[in-house]
Amino acid sequence: MSLKMSIEELREFMADVFPQVDDAFEVTELAPNVITVRMKISDRHLRPGGTVSGPSMFLLADCAYYLATLAMIGPKALAVTTNCSIDFLRKPAPGDMFAKARVLKLGKMLSVGDVLLFSEGVSEPVARASLTYSIPPVK
Amino acid sequence: MSLKMSIEELREFMADVFPQVDDAFEVTELAPNVITVRMKISDRHLRPGGTVSGPSMFLLADCAYYLATLAMIGPKALAVTTNCSIDFLRKPAPGDMFAKARVLKLGKMLSVGDVLLFSEGVSEPVARASLTYSIPPVK
Amino acid sequence: MSLKMSIEELREFMADVFPQVDDAFEVTELAPNVITVRMKISDRHLRPGGTVSGPSMFLLADCAYYLATLAMIGPKALAVTTNCSIDFLRKPAPGDMFAKARVLKLGKMLSVGDVLLFSEGVSEPVARASLTYSIPPVK
Amino acid sequence: MSLKMSIEELREFMADVFPQVDDAFEVTELAPNVITVRMKISDRHLRPGGTVSGPSMFLLADCAYYLATLAMIGPKALAVTTNCSIDFLRKPAPGDMFAKARVLKLGKMLSVGDVLLFSEGVSEPVARASLTYSIPPVK
Repeated sequence: MSLKMSIEELREFMADVFPQVDDAFEVTELAPNVITVRMKISDRHLRPGGTVSGPSMFLLADCAYYLATLAMIGPKALAVTTNCSIDFLRKPAPGDMFAKARVLKLGKMLSVGDVLLFSEGVSEPVARASLTYSIPPVK
Repeated sequence: MSLKMSIEELREFMADVFPQVDDAFEVTELAPNVITVRMKISDRHLRPGGTVSGPSMFLLADCAYYLATLAMIGPKALAVTTNCSIDFLRKPAPGDMFAKARVLKLGKMLSVGDVLLFSEGVSEPVARASLTYSIPPVK
Repeated sequence: MSLKMSIEELREFMADVFPQVDDAFEVTELAPNVITVRMKISDRHLRPGGTVSGPSMFLLADCAYYLATLAMIGPKALAVTTNCSIDFLRKPAPGDMFAKARVLKLGKMLSVGDVLLFSEGVSEPVARASLTYSIPPVK
Repeated sequence: MSLKMSIEELREFMADVFPQVDDAFEVTELAPNVITVRMKISDRHLRPGGTVSGPSMFLLADCAYYLATLAMIGPKALAVTTNCSIDFLRKPAPGDMFAKARVLKLGKMLSVGDVLLFSEGVSEPVARASLTYSIPPVK
């Protein structure tokens, strides 16, 4: 399958539909079934001690997989997460994070894939997640 | 096993160690291996349309299971989530949420259990999660 | 929702559709959204040392949740597992096992719930699992 | 980290410790943190209709990740699975299957990673799994 949205179209979609999270995320690479998303870390993403919080990493994994799916199916704001299984592997380093997501199965009803999360400049992953999105039927 | 912390001791611990999230959570019931935690929903927990966001539900599940574990092992701030698998079942209703967590296995190194999340006043669960916490060894 | 199949109807369905596993399983309790399934453990379910193997526990969890779903939707052999997340908590005791499954969400497309696995005569669970089944659309 | 066991040493270990499953599995590729394992499918791995059963795919994922971990830590038969989350993506094709596993985090207590399962000759994965193994402490 081929891409149905470009990086620029994903950016405009997010700014339109999710303005409150949009400023934190930037798609840096996009190809069929794979995407790289950078997350600009600010104070609201940190927990005491200054490391990125678990919910913020969940948000990054979820957002990256959402964008990977949208890029393949087109702009459907109503796709919703039905499952996320996340393993926290290492303490994040200070600074921004990025996510590399891949779509493993794109069916009529479900999109299933996984994501690796990294701290910028560190080669070993900070977390891994697998996600399932439910895709709303075409009306 | 018996409880090592009371509701009041958990409250003081959270206010001390996690002041930035403490105001949202309240332990309403506590017994060995089971806990009920209420989450006061405010604007920062919502996504467009006004429903509670996925990362906020992840935060509630994670926090409830952390408190369930602490109540059994005593105040160890360094217990960390190693895995969370969460299924989103229904759209949350407007208003506060609560979590019912149970500890299924409390070993020397790992605490494993699960959590059901509810919208206040609705009997069917909004989400379910299973979590594993790594418990730091006693020095 | 109410039950669409009885214990006897589930037994006949399994004998008909899955004769090769049927002799190991017996539904011992059934009510809307909850089921108890006993698994008769034989040599083929054991690993070296005589404990029940991981794949056998996966089979029990999967089968119990399948039967819990069928009891609610009627005999649809084509319901298929899309996800199973299983935590192994304790070494099983020698002897038979049983599973207590509950359906948490029964939608048009997906059935989502969880299962606790026990060794007979032991009160603490041996494993927990959450499962998602995809339900084939009515033609 | 470097490999502590070769393909031949893994083969001898399995023949010694797990003779009952050994004949089905063959390590075909091995490098630090990554392994490819082929599973010879026979009648006992099939369900009605002739496709590979869910428990057999669980067995392959579990065995592949166990071997990936052993290759990095040396022959420790007591490493045990604590969690497996598996997504079934497509119906397997007839014939043998293989698994590609990678170790994402090798700590003192836990090994965490993931596995893709394939039917021979088909490029799209049949299933994905993430696994956590608990590593017994050195005495």
